Amino acid sequence: MHDSELPAVAALRDALGADVVSLPADFAGRKHADWSRTPSADPVALIRPRTTEQVATALRICHEHRQAVVTQGGLTGLAGGACMLGGEVALSLERMSGIESIDRVGSAMTVLAGTPLQTVQEAADDAGFMFPLDLGARGSCTIGGNLATNAGGNRVIKYGMMREQVLDVEAVLADGNVVGGLRKMIKNNTGYDLRNLLIGSEGTLAVITRAVLRLRPKPRAVSTAFCGATSYDAVTTLLHAAQERLPAGVSAFEVMWPGYYDFVLERLPELRAPLAERHAYYVLLESSGADPERQAEAFEDFLSDMLESGVIADAALASSEADAAVFWAIRDAPGEYPRLIPGRVSFDVSFSIADVGEAARHAQAQLREQWPRATILIYGHLGDGNLHIVVQEPDWPADTAPRVQAVVYGVTAEFGGSVSAEHGIGLKKLGVIALSRTPAELAAMRAVKHALDPLNLLNPGKLLPA
Amino acid sequence: MHDSELPAVAALRDALGADVVSLPADFAGRKHADWSRTPSADPVALIRPRTTEQVATALRICHEHRQAVVTQGGLTGLAGGACMLGGEVALSLERMSGIESIDRVGSAMTVLAGTPLQTVQEAADDAGFMFPLDLGARGSCTIGGNLATNAGGNRVIKYGMMREQVLDVEAVLADGNVVGGLRKMIKNNTGYDLRNLLIGSEGTLAVITRAVLRLRPKPRAVSTAFCGATSYDAVTTLLHAAQERLPAGVSAFEVMWPGYYDFVLERLPELRAPLAERHAYYVLLESSGADPERQAEAFEDFLSDMLESGVIADAALASSEADAAVFWAIRDAPGEYPRLIPGRVSFDVSFSIADVGEAARHAQAQLREQWPRATILIYGHLGDGNLHIVVQEPDWPADTAPRVQAVVYGVTAEFGGSVSAEHGIGLKKLGVIALSRTPAELAAMRAVKHALDPLNLLNPGKLLPA
Repeated sequence: MHDSELPAVAALRDALGADVVSLPADFAGRKHADWSRTPSADPVALIRPRTTEQVATALRICHEHRQAVVTQGGLTGLAGGACMLGGEVALSLERMSGIESIDRVGSAMTVLAGTPLQTVQEAADDAGFMFPLDLGARGSCTIGGNLATNAGGNRVIKYGMMREQVLDVEAVLADGNVVGGLRKMIKNNTGYDLRNLLIGSEGTLAVITRAVLRLRPKPRAVSTAFCGATSYDAVTTLLHAAQERLPAGVSAFEVMWPGYYDFVLERLPELRAPLAERHAYYVLLESSGADPERQAEAFEDFLSDMLESGVIADAALASSEADAAVFWAIRDAPGEYPRLIPGRVSFDVSFSIADVGEAARHAQAQLREQWPRATILIYGHLGDGNLHIVVQEPDWPADTAPRVQAVVYGVTAEFGGSVSAEHGIGLKKLGVIALSRTPAELAAMRAVKHALDPLNLLNPGKLLPA
Repeated sequence: MHDSELPAVAALRDALGADVVSLPADFAGRKHADWSRTPSADPVALIRPRTTEQVATALRICHEHRQAVVTQGGLTGLAGGACMLGGEVALSLERMSGIESIDRVGSAMTVLAGTPLQTVQEAADDAGFMFPLDLGARGSCTIGGNLATNAGGNRVIKYGMMREQVLDVEAVLADGNVVGGLRKMIKNNTGYDLRNLLIGSEGTLAVITRAVLRLRPKPRAVSTAFCGATSYDAVTTLLHAAQERLPAGVSAFEVMWPGYYDFVLERLPELRAPLAERHAYYVLLESSGADPERQAEAFEDFLSDMLESGVIADAALASSEADAAVFWAIRDAPGEYPRLIPGRVSFDVSFSIADVGEAARHAQAQLREQWPRATILIYGHLGDGNLHIVVQEPDWPADTAPRVQAVVYGVTAEFGGSVSAEHGIGLKKLGVIALSRTPAELAAMRAVKHALDPLNLLNPGKLLPA
């Protein structure tokens, strides 16, 4: 044992070896912050296990030594959930990567938690299936991180969030006990729903090591349109009608407010405007299904009806994948934010679908009152009630962000919305979770945390305010 | 206070009045057993609150007096989850019944927990939606009971179990604190998933008082076929192809083994055989969607392809609702079991879809070996991996049931299946939960139970073995 080594680290190295447990000198320069750039301390050691047994051994030793642990996936989180506060060991699942098996009959895939999302998507595709979870970080984020944060993304309206893409989760609890495993049953009413409790717990209840993912039939055809509407009522009427009448259902319903639409078209000259006129709301509507010819016909009929009945004022129908890409490029413009609007304040909030229009109006009016010249971009997955709001002014004083947050989170609380639709709480949203959860709910969560991690060793200081 | 009254009961009557809290003399003859006919003791008092506040007051008082509570819904459970062991008060939600609001824009309905499922289905239908959960007990079972047991039923393959029909759940914890409420957000990543923890907890963690239910678009067309197949591989090929190719997806995929098919056709002369020949497997396939004409065409094309390519040996296509009813009557024959096969032993197990065929073969062979003359009926929701097995011999000795259970649960454990796919654990399956859950999982569940109900007052003795 080295002089400067902590007893916990020494015990971890004794049990797992120097290959699995590295000391700070071995990983100098390694990045520990996530995409939110929340500052992170350096860990006192880095554990990179190769097996669930090694994870269990590590947690058992940490438990004995009361050593705190932060689990790392792809470090693409947006809430600072994987950053370190000081004194923790980092547990990276990077070596537990790979697809273990694909069950074609059961439409299931067993993967290690460190597997990148994109690897899973590609393997599903190769096997003739689709894994529907999709988000911008797909190349770097891992299935374990997607599970720990209950990731959302682009296709929630049709397929649900990460929680609905999983048949079973294997995880190691704070005391080193392993729960869950390789079950592929869709129905299993035997006791409490530990699986959903661990999913979305952001590394504070367990370390997820493996999962059985649910695969879906691969869509054979995608129909896409870009629509203009004159009122929020018209937008929700379109959503409702699409859900009721499109034979293949709705796989995306992305709404953009004119401030967003005008901004991205002006600032990104490579984008093409799909519609000739300006409208009060823009909707990217997508339906994907099994029957190319009939689906295209039905989609076109539906759009004609919506135009004739005045639900939408205009629509452009994609007649090729290239057309659809033009529409999606407008919705995907946020990828350019770092260049276009540095220093922005961003929100990931959700509301009842009926409230989204009013909530957006209130937020915009209140922001505009305080910051008349600010760029205010509003858009979101309306089918899920999920709104993204981005606010920026070039020469803001340093203390502006908290004031902008006070406005938007204030409106969110007023409408009974969620301060975190899909990004989680981590460290960054600890101060606002109480706007979406009652004291009784937070107390119940603390009781559950204490039950499963009584020494508060797993990702301490995250998800639940002290 | 009456001489014979318990202090807890006296305090409940003081706080809530005699109208809400009845004494045994007032409810003599009232039934407390569920449909599983598990014997139940009589409660020491019956609480019938009208509001969530009254439920909270009742639980707070019970907590102070360490008085155990059993919550009653429609008493249609099949696992003895609502029966009393002696000394409990019964808390019936029968007066908290009714639909509070329907949100057409958000496709959501807010209901009190005591509302019967059928009332919810009908109100959804009247409002132009569908509430997809459906089971035989629909007229008597309540939404609160459906939530407490995470009910399954006929349409899980397309819409999921009760867990997936809910946006929020209001519940009263053991100490009288109220959690959850009237949130209608689809996405809400703010802390632990208390909602799913309470759903399926069978009244052991909280009393569910209200729910925001998710409504679905009403299908405009239903296509139905009855198919014969020669092998289990063919059955799973048909399932896979149907999921991939039917534009409206698969809304039912019910498989019947020949023992079942022959038995019900022989014993229920009012049934008509849909197919001329006998087959190794029978499949009731249903697809329901938005576009009557195109859907019917696509369904017919699909069946022709399956016949031509030899996946199925024969198929009857329903050309009317009456035809479909004839097919469904064969699958719904278990409603006649009480008359046809008294004294039967029934199972509700699940497996990976890939394992169902082998598991059924093993169970049947082992049962046949011990009881050569027994009636053995096998059928199930194959799309969910859910198998029902019913075994009976007219003049069985009284101790046969445990021996039959040992065989079927033995095979279930061997194939890593679930001993309770949809009926829950209650009291009846306490002895077998350990076949589907590991000691570490049961320990974690006990820790959660202790965290939320430290005095073990909510439905004690159920769901978790002592």
